[in-house]
Amino acid sequence: MDAAEFRKTGKEMVDYIADYLEKIDKRQVFPDVEPGYLRPLIPDCAPQDPESFEDVFKDIEKIIMPGVTHWHSPYFFAYFPAASSFPALLADMLCGGIGCVGFSWAASPACTELETVVLDWLGKMINLPEEFLAGKDGQGGGVIQGSASEATLISLLAARTKTIRRVQSEKPELTEAEIMGRLVAYASDQAHSSVERAALIGGVKIKNVPSDEKFTVCGSALKKVLEEDKAAGLIPFFFCATLGTTPCCSFDKLLELGPICNKENIWMHIDAAYAGSAFICPEFRHLLNGVEFADSFNFNPHKWLLVNFDCSAMWVKKRSDLTGAFKLEPLYLQHHHQESGLVTDYRHWQIPLGRRFRSLKLWFVLRMYGVTGLQEHIRKHVRLSHQFEQLVLQDERFEICAEVILGLVCFRLKGSNELNKALLKSINEAKKIHLVPCHLREKFVLRFAVCSRTVESTHIKFAWQHISQLATDLLKTGEQNQQQQ
Amino acid sequence: MDAAEFRKTGKEMVDYIADYLEKIDKRQVFPDVEPGYLRPLIPDCAPQDPESFEDVFKDIEKIIMPGVTHWHSPYFFAYFPAASSFPALLADMLCGGIGCVGFSWAASPACTELETVVLDWLGKMINLPEEFLAGKDGQGGGVIQGSASEATLISLLAARTKTIRRVQSEKPELTEAEIMGRLVAYASDQAHSSVERAALIGGVKIKNVPSDEKFTVCGSALKKVLEEDKAAGLIPFFFCATLGTTPCCSFDKLLELGPICNKENIWMHIDAAYAGSAFICPEFRHLLNGVEFADSFNFNPHKWLLVNFDCSAMWVKKRSDLTGAFKLEPLYLQHHHQESGLVTDYRHWQIPLGRRFRSLKLWFVLRMYGVTGLQEHIRKHVRLSHQFEQLVLQDERFEICAEVILGLVCFRLKGSNELNKALLKSINEAKKIHLVPCHLREKFVLRFAVCSRTVESTHIKFAWQHISQLATDLLKTGEQNQQQQ
Repeated sequence: MDAAEFRKTGKEMVDYIADYLEKIDKRQVFPDVEPGYLRPLIPDCAPQDPESFEDVFKDIEKIIMPGVTHWHSPYFFAYFPAASSFPALLADMLCGGIGCVGFSWAASPACTELETVVLDWLGKMINLPEEFLAGKDGQGGGVIQGSASEATLISLLAARTKTIRRVQSEKPELTEAEIMGRLVAYASDQAHSSVERAALIGGVKIKNVPSDEKFTVCGSALKKVLEEDKAAGLIPFFFCATLGTTPCCSFDKLLELGPICNKENIWMHIDAAYAGSAFICPEFRHLLNGVEFADSFNFNPHKWLLVNFDCSAMWVKKRSDLTGAFKLEPLYLQHHHQESGLVTDYRHWQIPLGRRFRSLKLWFVLRMYGVTGLQEHIRKHVRLSHQFEQLVLQDERFEICAEVILGLVCFRLKGSNELNKALLKSINEAKKIHLVPCHLREKFVLRFAVCSRTVESTHIKFAWQHISQLATDLLKTGEQNQQQQ
Repeated sequence: MDAAEFRKTGKEMVDYIADYLEKIDKRQVFPDVEPGYLRPLIPDCAPQDPESFEDVFKDIEKIIMPGVTHWHSPYFFAYFPAASSFPALLADMLCGGIGCVGFSWAASPACTELETVVLDWLGKMINLPEEFLAGKDGQGGGVIQGSASEATLISLLAARTKTIRRVQSEKPELTEAEIMGRLVAYASDQAHSSVERAALIGGVKIKNVPSDEKFTVCGSALKKVLEEDKAAGLIPFFFCATLGTTPCCSFDKLLELGPICNKENIWMHIDAAYAGSAFICPEFRHLLNGVEFADSFNFNPHKWLLVNFDCSAMWVKKRSDLTGAFKLEPLYLQHHHQESGLVTDYRHWQIPLGRRFRSLKLWFVLRMYGVTGLQEHIRKHVRLSHQFEQLVLQDERFEICAEVILGLVCFRLKGSNELNKALLKSINEAKKIHLVPCHLREKFVLRFAVCSRTVESTHIKFAWQHISQLATDLLKTGEQNQQQQ
């Protein structure tokens, strides 16, 4: 395929994508396929000779679409949103066209410099303390990671290196392995599984800090486990606070936790993967108060800020904490500008070496929506989640299981976990909408997350009527079964 | 921006990308900008109100392009190739349009299943042993990672877990920290820096195995370090063999190394990031002989197989080694199919949780080029590197520093490192072509990597004439300076 053919086929693809997204509400949100559906539909091996674009294109509807879960359907209420917008798609096309691999400044200066500047923009939009911004000569700055998991991991690793160096300077008799064996990381019992995974990867212990009745970690809970662990000879070194937990979007108490971490030489990382986007609205910014105590902060514009996956924004107060953790400089990656204070080589900030030009999509989205456009998007989702909350509250058979603060509603039928499992099963088998569950303590709970860019009040009403009807059917069947027994 | 506007602007972007790639040879391959160039060109913060696509679009040529290193220019001979092709660009557009996040089978079945099947295709193209393929009921299989660094890291971590469990079952008196402190990983002294980084992340020791005069690790070298380390009470657990080292594209001797690793319970991972693509040509497949001894194997179609970054293909013989290392199953990520043998939840195979629909671009490229088209691409690059090698060999002032096997030529002026540093400086300051250097033992060497999809014999001739002329100028200046002294 040459450029002339790409002009033609690229435009067909643009129309296909526009069609797909325009009429996505007509597709069944969750597919009908069973595991293993795809293999019999395509040949056993790659073709020897080239096939035409037309042949491949036909197979999108025939082979791919029947197995797609439509994350951008207005009937998709599962997990958390995956962002998508036309400006981001345009920028990603450009990113592919340029096709640079920006591991160092010299590998494509624009790729590095736009990222630094646009992360300053984004940091200012959520009113991050100055120390987190790169500015012209700051010690901090932002970076785009692939996912919040990577941001958590890289901050845990930086904290590990920093702590090992500190302890070794205080107690030179300890080996690195002995220190590693005594390090402990902490996170809420509501924290995302990627925090525990980061600790497993880093080869250090991790402990849950018990959350309170609002699923929130407060200072006294952290203090208690720290005292116990220090008394047992362990070395607390890392605390991951969560703003907007995955099960129920609860918020850890940064203003209590931050000063404790600072005093105890514990790196505080804040994972606000989902909730962070909301902080661009002044009315939600208070949820971030206490960030000034943190060493690193992360949220995912690819979740709720209309930037297509992957774009996980991370900031640190001291970039040297990240870059100092693993800096390796083979000659083929060196360039003569690298010792300049103005130069960032982002490969030292992340797990992989290579990186795409992801700041383009953030830049396109921020400019083509503007701050006000993005605020509207957030506010619409919060409004719709409160609409759903009200519908639930008006039905006495149901209960709300956690405070609704942003775009997530946790709810359930009053009654047993089995009943709620049966309800979720009937919802997801009907495939008119799609939800996933969570556990809140011993309770099995349904999560209703407002996700799609195009979701409107009518979809919320439809979803509720549908759920409510399925609940009625379920309860009726239950009564009949009881009568028959 | 709505779908109608996207139809228009998306097509403008398609034309822009086609124009860019069609006329990329007219652009200066390396930019003129100095560090910090970009910040003064754009505002301090994001706009409050939306800007038009036209405004953003204008800034691509004004702000971005002046700072781009043009990796797809036929005058780009630096690093290793970054793959790019029109079929991959089309597939990436579709990937963005669908916008699913495929961390589990249920999150988008097509995303998982296409990946498994297409990695079987690719595995068959390079004639990987059956055990590495998923097939219908295999224990192995392939996965797309973001980068070779991640593939190395995840295999090192799997090996670490496996070894800790084995040692603990043999010697229950040892704690995990004690075992960790005795684990040692190994790689060639020519291995990529990401291998050392993986060990640092994993919190284990790593040692270089000395390569021979051909920059190759042979069995006896590995055996020697293993004996020493075992005698010192250490526990060897991981060896990363390299096929196609970054400095000079040398190949470790798998047929000698593999049996040693198997006998010693050492996980052998093969990093063939660049060279792996060549194994689709029968005449290069012998370089992979010995892969049957490996536990995991990785190469980057995003380097040399025309699939845009990121697409790093990794296979393992036992998928349970990867998934068993860190499996965590919170309820919101569970789905009712997951215990089926047919279901792969790729989140357990990788560092991040989220993942894009990257198999689409591999599928598009394999189908629209066909095996023969991709073989032609590889063979052209190898032919061109030998053309460059011949030109170097015909000039007595120069020497070839390592055997030319694939698309990389390591060469230098006979003489001091300073002389060669000066030559590279004059090449990269002239900005007609772009190269990076490496060290081979004590020698500073220039790397000439055939990179662009559109590079032809004329570009190679031009590059050589240019280098040769700069060498003449440099040597003349040197003589003049000597005469003046």
